[in-house]
Amino acid sequence: MRTHYCGHVSETDLDQEVTLCGWAHRRRDHGGVIFIDLRDREGLVQVVFDPDRAETFALAERVRNEFVLKVRGRVRRRPAGTENPDLPTGQVEVLGLELEILNAAKTPPFQLDEHEQAGEDVRLRYRYVDLRRPEMLQRMRARARITSNLRRFLDDHGFLDIETPMLTRATPEGARDYLVPSRTHPGSFFALPQSPQLFKQLLMMAGMDRYYQIVRCFRDEDLRADRQPEFTQLDIETSFMDEAGIMHLTERMMRRLFADVLQVDLPDPFPRMQYAEAMDRFGSDKPDLRIPLELVEVADLMGGVEFKVFAGPAADPRGRVAALHVPGGGSLTRKQIDDYTQFVGRYGAKGLAYIKVNDPAQGREGLQSPILKFLTDEAVDGILARTEAQAGDLIFFGADKAKVVNDALGALRVRLGHDLEMVEDEWRPLWVVDFPMFEYDEKDGRLYALHHPFTAPNVEDPAELEGKDPEQLISRAYDMVLNGTELGGGSVRIHRQDMQQAVFGLLGIGEEEAREKFGFLLDALDFGAPPHGGIAFGLDRLVMLMTGADSIREVMAFPKTQTAACLLTDAPAQVSIAQLQELALRITKPQG
Amino acid sequence: MRTHYCGHVSETDLDQEVTLCGWAHRRRDHGGVIFIDLRDREGLVQVVFDPDRAETFALAERVRNEFVLKVRGRVRRRPAGTENPDLPTGQVEVLGLELEILNAAKTPPFQLDEHEQAGEDVRLRYRYVDLRRPEMLQRMRARARITSNLRRFLDDHGFLDIETPMLTRATPEGARDYLVPSRTHPGSFFALPQSPQLFKQLLMMAGMDRYYQIVRCFRDEDLRADRQPEFTQLDIETSFMDEAGIMHLTERMMRRLFADVLQVDLPDPFPRMQYAEAMDRFGSDKPDLRIPLELVEVADLMGGVEFKVFAGPAADPRGRVAALHVPGGGSLTRKQIDDYTQFVGRYGAKGLAYIKVNDPAQGREGLQSPILKFLTDEAVDGILARTEAQAGDLIFFGADKAKVVNDALGALRVRLGHDLEMVEDEWRPLWVVDFPMFEYDEKDGRLYALHHPFTAPNVEDPAELEGKDPEQLISRAYDMVLNGTELGGGSVRIHRQDMQQAVFGLLGIGEEEAREKFGFLLDALDFGAPPHGGIAFGLDRLVMLMTGADSIREVMAFPKTQTAACLLTDAPAQVSIAQLQELALRITKPQG
Repeated sequence: MRTHYCGHVSETDLDQEVTLCGWAHRRRDHGGVIFIDLRDREGLVQVVFDPDRAETFALAERVRNEFVLKVRGRVRRRPAGTENPDLPTGQVEVLGLELEILNAAKTPPFQLDEHEQAGEDVRLRYRYVDLRRPEMLQRMRARARITSNLRRFLDDHGFLDIETPMLTRATPEGARDYLVPSRTHPGSFFALPQSPQLFKQLLMMAGMDRYYQIVRCFRDEDLRADRQPEFTQLDIETSFMDEAGIMHLTERMMRRLFADVLQVDLPDPFPRMQYAEAMDRFGSDKPDLRIPLELVEVADLMGGVEFKVFAGPAADPRGRVAALHVPGGGSLTRKQIDDYTQFVGRYGAKGLAYIKVNDPAQGREGLQSPILKFLTDEAVDGILARTEAQAGDLIFFGADKAKVVNDALGALRVRLGHDLEMVEDEWRPLWVVDFPMFEYDEKDGRLYALHHPFTAPNVEDPAELEGKDPEQLISRAYDMVLNGTELGGGSVRIHRQDMQQAVFGLLGIGEEEAREKFGFLLDALDFGAPPHGGIAFGLDRLVMLMTGADSIREVMAFPKTQTAACLLTDAPAQVSIAQLQELALRITKPQG
Repeated sequence: MRTHYCGHVSETDLDQEVTLCGWAHRRRDHGGVIFIDLRDREGLVQVVFDPDRAETFALAERVRNEFVLKVRGRVRRRPAGTENPDLPTGQVEVLGLELEILNAAKTPPFQLDEHEQAGEDVRLRYRYVDLRRPEMLQRMRARARITSNLRRFLDDHGFLDIETPMLTRATPEGARDYLVPSRTHPGSFFALPQSPQLFKQLLMMAGMDRYYQIVRCFRDEDLRADRQPEFTQLDIETSFMDEAGIMHLTERMMRRLFADVLQVDLPDPFPRMQYAEAMDRFGSDKPDLRIPLELVEVADLMGGVEFKVFAGPAADPRGRVAALHVPGGGSLTRKQIDDYTQFVGRYGAKGLAYIKVNDPAQGREGLQSPILKFLTDEAVDGILARTEAQAGDLIFFGADKAKVVNDALGALRVRLGHDLEMVEDEWRPLWVVDFPMFEYDEKDGRLYALHHPFTAPNVEDPAELEGKDPEQLISRAYDMVLNGTELGGGSVRIHRQDMQQAVFGLLGIGEEEAREKFGFLLDALDFGAPPHGGIAFGLDRLVMLMTGADSIREVMAFPKTQTAACLLTDAPAQVSIAQLQELALRITKPQG
């Protein structure tokens, strides 16, 4: 139906006839002539209709924004002085010879260049209009390009793209599953996968050797922050390869991706950091290395302090007392500090102590702080020495359970980095390694797997697990982090049945329960399971980072709202009684 | 962990040390020496352990089938006379210097080369063992290669891979949906998509221009024949392209796929056939052109026949009387003909009349048939002339509603083709075009869309639909057929709101109902919808055809049974009361 994309018309087409299809982006009448910016996926070109061709001109007069048009015309150079250097087609225009209105359009719910006023709900309801914005279109294109690039790398490295089921068994030990009632087995349910973890392990046991899949995953969680009920994972698993091999390979994949798509050279190799160091220095297992702020341990200085806010956590083996030194932070106002205090409160911190450093050479006299009176001279001197604080700086403190301190100061560090414009304009990837196997949950009073219960410990034999403090056990897991975002996480998996049983045991999953929940995995481990491991990358977040979008919703064609609804199609929706009867289900009164 | 894949060891590695990992495919002890065929994804190689290395030898003695091994050894030429020409590595063997048992294995539930005795249930339960069979592995590889080839073609032709939601709105007018209860909207349900049909149309309205996706689709149907509750579709949609363009492009894609993967040249262009002709000649809209049998219309010859089995359908405007001429069919036994009679009964045929042709030159005298007495001489002569039957042939007859005759004789034609070994060893693609818009359902007494209600009729203006017999309306749909299998189907879609309303109207969907069910589509058609169309291919079937597998289950890693269950993970399964309460659901007693 067309000879060219609008955005591809150029000076090489001068004096030639072209046929274009697209949307009327804007119509202007000027000096008795009609100008229509015709838009398609590839860009805009200016089409000019003059009154000489009366019929075509009359039709052009009927055109409104977002009408769908087909135009035959002749390419000509724009008159001198009217070129548009901002537009790739800005040197030329098309003289319209023939016009067909392929479809009319009502006034759209918002103008494309006024989407910000529209509000996200309106944009989601009319997503097909919102996606016409060049920015959104570029994100969709970038996403397609990124997935294609990743696929080609993996195809070229012997990985087989293998599909795993969507209708599968509920995942014990995970987040909440989306359930799918079975009609042929009334009263039973499938679950949508949170990840294809066990299937990819089974594929290794099936001898597939190298597997990948770009696959939809599901979690029925309350959508805080930037989560979606369905999201996409690049899922990878290999046999006979250790963590060094997997990290090396996937690092190369990422380097190639960034080079090809963004013309960015990521470091080779990516730096590595132990989990313990990341927590100590950044309060986070996904530190944003672009921010030049670090936490400093000061618990040992607080031993003699008669201030139980500090002395308590300093004496608690699960406690932490840390300082966050902020160069130039002395200029923060009382109001700003109050805001930060409220901010860290979200992470469970009960307050936010600070010291303003006016003149460190004067020791205690050169400082300003409500907590100064509680600190010994030794503590003050130690803090100044350890943070190397200078005049005009500020030091924040966290003292609580280590988890609270890390969460609070880790988040504060990132927020300060942005607020004080300290974030370097760089790509800073990082491997975080040597994760603990387990995390103790205070509330439930039990251990949970930090990654998942199939992650191998860094010992060969289950006997080596015995008699050790489980919280001290280190796993063979690794996370790829980029600019403070976890891009992906993986591990070498357990491939011996006795080890898997032992780890289940540490998690409080008895033999009977293990057999009931994971019988098929335990069987498979017994029938010739190779050493294997893998990794999974969050594709939505990767695309978000690479396109500079603010949210994963901006890189998904049809995202859902925070209450897991689709405003466009109005899903979820009610279904008929007959449908429920077929599924042997009845709706009970909702509580709320 | 390895230097080579087992299957890649070759004469170029002679006298070199290699490290291999894999499964013990078979162990033989012969002349005091242990031979282990070591298997990985790429093939087998023979490893020899001799008693000189006592420790390694002792370890090798412990090896059983499917043990996972790591072997360091030296490649050497096999002794003369012991080469195995059937094996790519059959000229060499590896002298085992060091052996590590990476994992032991219990005796597998079935030996790989005895899978046929195991039965499909056992194979599905231990799918990770079944997938180790070289044949299954090759199918998984072929599948990955096919998807990769299709993706590259589409990537290279400007198509954007865009993901559409899995948690979406129920599809009215389709098959039965799988439902997903919403926790955040108690009493409401998502549906898993039967296809991304409306989303891909919305993407065209969003200006994406060319879209594709390899996407999981779901249908909760009773699994007759070769269906699966989840299946995979290559889904394509384009804007500003008509049916000729879409057919040309996807045909090229298939030609390239077959050339690259199977080294087969498909015809250029694919032949085209109108729906009406396909039904007339083959009783099917997906004729297998490899079978040289055709239906012949004989209703006009039966007008004067006093046999109401024939005369009734001959006089019925929705009836059909057809003959299927089977060259050499005269040798069919009474028993065989009885079997075929039973076979066509499955398609609703109430009987299967036939004539054996002994000597056509003798007219009626040269024939043998229970129905001969009912036929006039004119009918007999007409049948012989029209079928061009020769001595030794047989003619079957179908007389009933046209649908029954087509279904029955169409299926019989295919079955006879296979039974009589008439199927040519060829690839015979075909486009079937000019489908009717609607199909009348006798039972419901209403029209249904033959493709789907978004398919465009072959008229421009809704006014042209008025006053016409809806059953005579032709759509702009097209199916790609290969060797009797529908590979894919598509159409140009309706892009004008008035036309969509008119088609809904013909389907008995009133304005209010249309707005309730498809309001978002009708809105979108109003805000600048371009002309668009597309196609969807069934990937599982394509892979099945290309790999020569008997069933789509054989080309899926983890298929489900006929009752939609996964024997491996034992899904679907029961869930807890707490989970149901969160979803505001209660299970009613199943009926059965």
